[in-house]
Amino acid sequence: MLFYAKINFMKNKNSNIVVLAQLNPISGDVEYNKNKAIENIKKANEINADLIIFPELFLIGYPIGDILTRYPYLAEQSKKALEEIKNITSNTAVLIGFAEENKEKFGKPFYNSVALIQNREIKRIIRKSLLANYAEHNDYRYFEPAKINKEDRLININGINYGIAICEDSWNDFDFFEKNLYSIDPIKEIAPSADIIICPSSSCTRAKKEQLKHNMMKHLAKKYNVKYIYVNQTGANDELVYDGYSRMYDEKGELCAMAKGFEEDFFIIDLNSNENTINPLPKGLELTLNSQKEFSLDHTPDLERTYRAITLAIKDYFKKNNFKRAVLGLSGGLDSTICAVLLADALGKENVLGISMPSKLTSSDSKNDAKELAQNLGINFMEIPIKDMHDNISDKFENIFSKAQDLFKERYSQSFTQDNIQARSRALILWGIANEFASTIPIATSDKSELYMGYATINGDMSGGYAPISDVVKTKLFALARWMNENRPQKNTIPESIINKPPQAELAIDPKTGKTLLAEDALMPYEFLDEVIWRIENFNQSIDNMMKSKFLYEKKNILDEKTKLQWLNKFFRRLNTAIYKWYIIPPGPVIDGRSINKIEFRQPIISNINYSK
Amino acid sequence: MLFYAKINFMKNKNSNIVVLAQLNPISGDVEYNKNKAIENIKKANEINADLIIFPELFLIGYPIGDILTRYPYLAEQSKKALEEIKNITSNTAVLIGFAEENKEKFGKPFYNSVALIQNREIKRIIRKSLLANYAEHNDYRYFEPAKINKEDRLININGINYGIAICEDSWNDFDFFEKNLYSIDPIKEIAPSADIIICPSSSCTRAKKEQLKHNMMKHLAKKYNVKYIYVNQTGANDELVYDGYSRMYDEKGELCAMAKGFEEDFFIIDLNSNENTINPLPKGLELTLNSQKEFSLDHTPDLERTYRAITLAIKDYFKKNNFKRAVLGLSGGLDSTICAVLLADALGKENVLGISMPSKLTSSDSKNDAKELAQNLGINFMEIPIKDMHDNISDKFENIFSKAQDLFKERYSQSFTQDNIQARSRALILWGIANEFASTIPIATSDKSELYMGYATINGDMSGGYAPISDVVKTKLFALARWMNENRPQKNTIPESIINKPPQAELAIDPKTGKTLLAEDALMPYEFLDEVIWRIENFNQSIDNMMKSKFLYEKKNILDEKTKLQWLNKFFRRLNTAIYKWYIIPPGPVIDGRSINKIEFRQPIISNINYSK
Repeated sequence: MLFYAKINFMKNKNSNIVVLAQLNPISGDVEYNKNKAIENIKKANEINADLIIFPELFLIGYPIGDILTRYPYLAEQSKKALEEIKNITSNTAVLIGFAEENKEKFGKPFYNSVALIQNREIKRIIRKSLLANYAEHNDYRYFEPAKINKEDRLININGINYGIAICEDSWNDFDFFEKNLYSIDPIKEIAPSADIIICPSSSCTRAKKEQLKHNMMKHLAKKYNVKYIYVNQTGANDELVYDGYSRMYDEKGELCAMAKGFEEDFFIIDLNSNENTINPLPKGLELTLNSQKEFSLDHTPDLERTYRAITLAIKDYFKKNNFKRAVLGLSGGLDSTICAVLLADALGKENVLGISMPSKLTSSDSKNDAKELAQNLGINFMEIPIKDMHDNISDKFENIFSKAQDLFKERYSQSFTQDNIQARSRALILWGIANEFASTIPIATSDKSELYMGYATINGDMSGGYAPISDVVKTKLFALARWMNENRPQKNTIPESIINKPPQAELAIDPKTGKTLLAEDALMPYEFLDEVIWRIENFNQSIDNMMKSKFLYEKKNILDEKTKLQWLNKFFRRLNTAIYKWYIIPPGPVIDGRSINKIEFRQPIISNINYSK
Repeated sequence: MLFYAKINFMKNKNSNIVVLAQLNPISGDVEYNKNKAIENIKKANEINADLIIFPELFLIGYPIGDILTRYPYLAEQSKKALEEIKNITSNTAVLIGFAEENKEKFGKPFYNSVALIQNREIKRIIRKSLLANYAEHNDYRYFEPAKINKEDRLININGINYGIAICEDSWNDFDFFEKNLYSIDPIKEIAPSADIIICPSSSCTRAKKEQLKHNMMKHLAKKYNVKYIYVNQTGANDELVYDGYSRMYDEKGELCAMAKGFEEDFFIIDLNSNENTINPLPKGLELTLNSQKEFSLDHTPDLERTYRAITLAIKDYFKKNNFKRAVLGLSGGLDSTICAVLLADALGKENVLGISMPSKLTSSDSKNDAKELAQNLGINFMEIPIKDMHDNISDKFENIFSKAQDLFKERYSQSFTQDNIQARSRALILWGIANEFASTIPIATSDKSELYMGYATINGDMSGGYAPISDVVKTKLFALARWMNENRPQKNTIPESIINKPPQAELAIDPKTGKTLLAEDALMPYEFLDEVIWRIENFNQSIDNMMKSKFLYEKKNILDEKTKLQWLNKFFRRLNTAIYKWYIIPPGPVIDGRSINKIEFRQPIISNINYSK
C-alpha cells in the first residue's frame, strides 16, 4: 500500500529516479537470482525509474568459488537468464552483474561484467579491471582483468552521465591509499567525464571496514566532484555476511542516501531531491570512524554490527541449506550461552534445542545456569547426564590403553584423554539428534580466542555443522553478553552468574587448586591473549615486536618480562598446532577485520615458522 | 665415496657442470631451508660447478600460503639468509628462489624471485611474471607480476647464455596450448638469445601432468633450438607432493638427463656430455603419454606413481609435523587395508597400530581378514569389540530421542543414527589412543568415490589427522591393491578375500536382502560412479552431457535411461551435501588431475546448482 503510494508520487514528479536493488542472491542458483531480478525490474518499470542497479555478479551469486569453472554450464544458464531479463526491460535501464565468458584465445575463462539493458536491448557490457585476490577474494582465479577503455564505462541515461566501476575498480585511489595494489585507477579515467559514479559491489561486513568504506567513498565523491552510488548485496553465503547499506554521496562527499542494513531493500533514490532516506548504521560504529590504534576492551562500537551479522549469517546458512533447527550443548558457560541466544534470535526459539550434559566435573551452578538460560530464552531444553557414558568409555579405554602400551610405548603420564572423552560424548549426542531428527544442525560453540590456542576438542566442542562465534574473541563475547542483555527486546536473558564466572571447560581438575581448571590458568589471561591476536591481525607483529610493546594488561597488572615471553611463546607454539583444527573447523561467519578462518587465510599445516623477528 | 670419485672425474675434465639441487624444503622454516642450501652450495663449490640451481621460492618454502603476508618478518629472515648464502659463494654461480619484498607504492607486497649469486655478490634478481592462480596455486594473492625486460633474464656464465623463466613463466607457449591464460610469453622473449633455458619450479605431481610437462618442455626445446633445464622440488607439504624428476632436454627436444623421483637429489649434469644419467619415471606412465580420452578401468599406467606419491606424502606429513605413529581401524575392507599398507611402508610397520573393532554387524570373515592383513604386514594389532559401546550408546540414545521427539518433532522413520554410532565409537577409540600415546595420528580411511557421495561419517571414518586415499577412486584402489601384492618386496600381503569381496561398510542391514547393505546398493555401481567423477573432473560435464555419453558401464551392462538419470541425479544431489564434508575433511595428498579437495577447489557450501545444462 505504502509502496504504491510512493510510486505515484514519483511518477508525477517526473524526476530522475534510481533504484538500488539491494538483494540477497544464492551462489550458483541462477534461476532463483534471475526470478528475483525480474521481480525487481518490474517494480522499477512501474515507477518509471531511470535506472535499476543490481549488486556485482548478481545473476550467478557471490561468492561463487570454483563452481564457475567446474560447471561452465552455469555461465550458459546465466546468459539465458540475461536474455529473459532483456525481454522484460522497458525504458528503465537495468545494470546487472553476470559472469561473462571470455571467448578469446588469451586470458582467464570469464570476465566479471555488468550488462546495461534497456528497451529489450543489451546496450553495453562493462568489465571489471581490478581483481581482488586477497582475504576471502579469489577473483583472479576465474576472471580476466579487462583493459580500461574510458568510453566503454560511461553511459548516458536521460541526460545524466554515469561512470561504472565494479567493486574493486573503485578501490585504488592513489591519494587515499598509502600503498596501492594496482598501478591503474579506473576511477581516475572515468570520473572526470561523469556526473555520477556507480559502484555495483559484493562487499562483506568486517570490523572497521565500514569506516574505511565511508571515508574512501566520501573522498572519491569530493575529489572528483561527482555523486557516488554504491550498491551492495545483502544476506550471508557460508562465512561471508553482506551488510547491504547501499548508498549515495553527493558532490561534496556528504552521505545523502542510505539503504537498510542486513536485509533486502528496493531502495529508491530521487537524484533531484535533498531528502532521500538515510537509514542508520549499527549503533556505535560512528565512534570508531578513525581506525583504532590501541587495543581496547571497550568493544561497544562493534557490538550491534556483530550481533546483526551473526544472526543474519545463521539465518541464511540454515535457510539456504534447507535446514531449520539447531541443537547445542549448554554448559552454563559463556560461549554456549551466547550461541543459544543468537540461534534463538535467528531461527526462532522453537527451533533451538539446548542440552545440558553434565559430567561428574560439572558444578550444580553450571547446571542451574544452563537451565535458567534455556527457560529465560524459551528454547527447548533437556538435561542428559553423561557420567554413565564417560565411565563406560573410560573403563573401556583403560583396558585398551593397557594393551596398547605394550605395542606402542610412549604413553603420556598426563594426557587430555579424559577431558576429551567428555567433550566427544557430548558431540556424539548432538550429532545423534541431528541424525535422528529432520533438518537439524549441531552447533560448534568454540570462540576465536580459544581456537587460536587450539583449546577445543576435535570431534568435541569444535565439531558441528556451523560455528557461530568462531571469529569473536572472548573479551568481546563478555561485552556482547551484556549488550544483548540490554538491547534485545527481552532484557537480562543471560543470567548474571554466567557473565561473572571465570571461563572454564569443566573437563579437568587443576592439581594446584584441587578445583576444576580455569581456562586462564590453562592458557593465559584473556585480556592478554586477545591483545596478542589483535596485534597479529592488525599489525603482523612478531614476538620481538610484542615484547617491545606495552600491553593493556601490563598497564593494569604487574607482568615480568619472563612471564610475558613465556605467554607469547606458548601462544605461537599452540597456534602452530591449532592450524590443523582450523583446517577442519566447520564454517562460521567472518566478523573481525582479519581471521584465520580457512575461507580467507591459508596457512600450511606444515609450517615451521620462527615467530621472532 | 662414490660421490667424491665422481667429483674428481668432473674436476679433471674441465667441462661445464650444472647442479640441479632437487631438495625438500619446509614451508616457513627459513633456517632449515637456508642450511640445506648452504650444504649443497658447498658441495657444488667443491666440484667447481658452473652453476647450482634451486627450486622456486626455495628459501621460504612452497607452498607458502598466507604466512608470507601475515608474518612479514619471514621475508626479512629470508633476506638475511640470502646474505649468509652470499658469503659462502665462490666462482660457482647460485640461482636460488626467495620472496622479494616489493617496496614500491604500487603492487602486491612481494615478488616471486630468484637471486643470481656468485663470488660473494648478488649479481641479479630475476622476477616471475606469470602468476599461477588456479587449482592449488594462489600466487596472485602475494606476488606482483613482473614486467618482462629481456636483458634482465639473460645471464652469461662461463660463456654460456642462460635464460631464466620461473615455473609458470615457461608455461604459456602460444603454439602448444590451445588456450592461453596470459597474453604474454616470457620464453618467446628470452629463448632466441639463450643457449639454455632454466626453469626453477615447484610443480606437484598429478595424474597426467608428467605427460603434459614432458610434451611441453620437449616442444619448447625443439621450437627454440635450446637446451631446457627444469629444477623441481621434492617432498610433500600438506596435500601437495612434489615428485622431483628434475631434468634436461637437448636442442632437438630429447630428454637427456633426469634426476630421481620422489626423493632429494644433488643431480649433476655435464653440459658437454652425451651420457648424463636418466633416471626412470614411475613404470606405466609412458603408456599414457597422450592424454586419455576415454574412461578406463585399467589404472595400470598410474599405480606406481600413486603408490610413491602417497607413501612420500605420509612420510613427510608425519616427519615435518613431528609425528611418528599412526593408528587406524582395520575393518577387513579395501580402504582401511590399503591405508594400512601405505602407512607401514611410509612409517615402518612398528609405527602402525591397526585395530579391528567389530560390531554385531561385522562378519567373522571381516575380522579374520583384518587380522590376517595385520599379521602379513607385521604391524601392531588389537581387536576391540565395540558391541558394548554401541549397545550402551544406543540405549542412551533411545531414551534421549523419545524425550527429544516431544520437543523437536519430525523424527525420521529411517535414519543413519545406528550406522553412525558404530563409526563414531571407532573414531572415539582411535582419537583416545592418539591422545594417550605420544606422536600418534589417527587415520581417516575414506576414499574419493565415497567422499564425492558423502558416504562417510562425520566424526567417524572420515575423521582423523590425515586422509591418505581421499583422492583415489574405488576402482583404482582395487587395482592398487593388486599392484601392491605384485610389486612390494613382500608379495601378496593383502589377502585375496579382501580384494574379492564387494565393498560394504557393515553398518546397516539391507531390508531387501536381510544381509548387511552393500555400498553399491546404497550408492550405485563403482564403475559408473567413478566414470561420473572422471567426466566432471576432465570434461566439466553436466547431467545432460552425461546422458548423451555412453559410459563404459553401459557397454558391459544393460542400463536403461531412467536408471541412468536416477543415478546421475542421486550423484549430484549427494554431492551438494557432501561439500560440507569436504569442508571439514583432514588433509590428504592430491593425486588425481583434479579433485574437490579444499586446497584446490572452492565450492560454496551454499550453492544451489542446477547440474543440467
